[in-house]
Amino acid sequence: MSKRTVFIVSDRTGLTAEELSHSLLTQFPGVHFTTTVLPFVDTDDKVNDVVHQINAAAQVDSVRPLVFMTFVNANYSQRVSQAEALVIDVFNAFLATLARELGAQPSHQAGHSHGVVDPARYISRIDAVQYAMDCDDGSNADDYGQADLILMGVSRSGKTPTCVYLAMHFGLYCANYPLTDEDLGSEHLPKILRPYRQRLFGLTINPQRLQEIRHKRRPDKRYSELQQCRYEVGQVEAMFRRHQIAMLDTSRMSVEEIAATLLHTTGIRRELVG
Amino acid sequence: MSKRTVFIVSDRTGLTAEELSHSLLTQFPGVHFTTTVLPFVDTDDKVNDVVHQINAAAQVDSVRPLVFMTFVNANYSQRVSQAEALVIDVFNAFLATLARELGAQPSHQAGHSHGVVDPARYISRIDAVQYAMDCDDGSNADDYGQADLILMGVSRSGKTPTCVYLAMHFGLYCANYPLTDEDLGSEHLPKILRPYRQRLFGLTINPQRLQEIRHKRRPDKRYSELQQCRYEVGQVEAMFRRHQIAMLDTSRMSVEEIAATLLHTTGIRRELVG
Repeated sequence: MSKRTVFIVSDRTGLTAEELSHSLLTQFPGVHFTTTVLPFVDTDDKVNDVVHQINAAAQVDSVRPLVFMTFVNANYSQRVSQAEALVIDVFNAFLATLARELGAQPSHQAGHSHGVVDPARYISRIDAVQYAMDCDDGSNADDYGQADLILMGVSRSGKTPTCVYLAMHFGLYCANYPLTDEDLGSEHLPKILRPYRQRLFGLTINPQRLQEIRHKRRPDKRYSELQQCRYEVGQVEAMFRRHQIAMLDTSRMSVEEIAATLLHTTGIRRELVG
Repeated sequence: MSKRTVFIVSDRTGLTAEELSHSLLTQFPGVHFTTTVLPFVDTDDKVNDVVHQINAAAQVDSVRPLVFMTFVNANYSQRVSQAEALVIDVFNAFLATLARELGAQPSHQAGHSHGVVDPARYISRIDAVQYAMDCDDGSNADDYGQADLILMGVSRSGKTPTCVYLAMHFGLYCANYPLTDEDLGSEHLPKILRPYRQRLFGLTINPQRLQEIRHKRRPDKRYSELQQCRYEVGQVEAMFRRHQIAMLDTSRMSVEEIAATLLHTTGIRRELVG
């Protein structure tokens, strides 16, 4: 397997470049990448150090490294682009095109994304995360009135991380309610959920997959027996159908896919708050 | 203020394109953007619908929309690129360059990022999120042995969202411990934290900023009085100095900036798990 050194360089967090490079490099499964992230490169000295480090890697590897960079400071990006590397300038590749199209110059100010935020927006995002934590796993049902979305499903069907993700990235108030044996034995929706019919969404999961996840967590209990998983999933899907609650099978989905599907399916307001 | 319609189009979640476009467009504060996200565009019919929708917007606006797209399916991206729009092909702009450099063809398989993940990795990420929730705000201190990092600080200094972010995106086990009046009156580190000296990190915050955040949450209490905020921050910083615990002032930082700084400062292992 061939190898390549990768640098992510930025005068801010570098998270945008890190995520994009992750998306791109996973398209080359035949190459083994070793990645170094160098964030907050925001002085002349730091830029010099970075260029040295890249050039040193080029020498050691006998092949030029890949550099993904997002600099707001155009002077710095220009200097890094002269290093001994294939340099991918994530921002500038598109900024010039956008500037021409919009007939406007980019502000070249740091921190407009993943950066300093206005206090009100910061606070509302933090409050959304706190809400997800407070209203996790059926807790604080008295606060369901504030929910944008209430996820319901059996234990380990993906409710908690999805709520947290939607809070962190979109500032949404998401509660989640675990359907337990007691709820599953009834024909009715749990009483506590009935006032919020329009905001309910059901998650379901393949029983084998559920068994696998539960087994890793609590092996050798009724909880992680395949028969119990089958029973719960069967009952939960019947409940969703009976009450016409939209449902999503999360078996082979990442948290991001579940979150993106929920936003898309429900048409709930979405605005990145990161 | 000029206006422009923006479409984010993808055969997967579209989250990569959404985050990148967010970074780029915030560089043009003089333009008002209206964004529509169209994820999971993965059939011929859906591609046709998207092209129609873009062309219709071009007609209504009398100016062509901006389209940011990430298609794994090259046939789809080719068709969307013919719409009446400025089309920014986030993946292909770089994939061809990377393929040439690496002497390898991209796999063009969906779901390598933000997508289907191997079960072990999925589970470890979910477990990290669960850990952040279980060990929030001083709870379950018996589990601190598992922590990669234990954040300490006064209430509302940014501990909780940072722990959740590091769990969600990097699969790290982060606990957080709130320093209360009782802890702050002592010269010593809280007993419960002493075994984990190497994993402690202190968050601090400007007292005015803290007062502002607390006031929004619980006005008219001692908790949100400036004098109390000043006292707590002074004591906490003295504690960090006395015990030589690294500290970070989060006053003007986003959650991403706090997380990126912690990763960078501590040199903790980092691997995107999204």
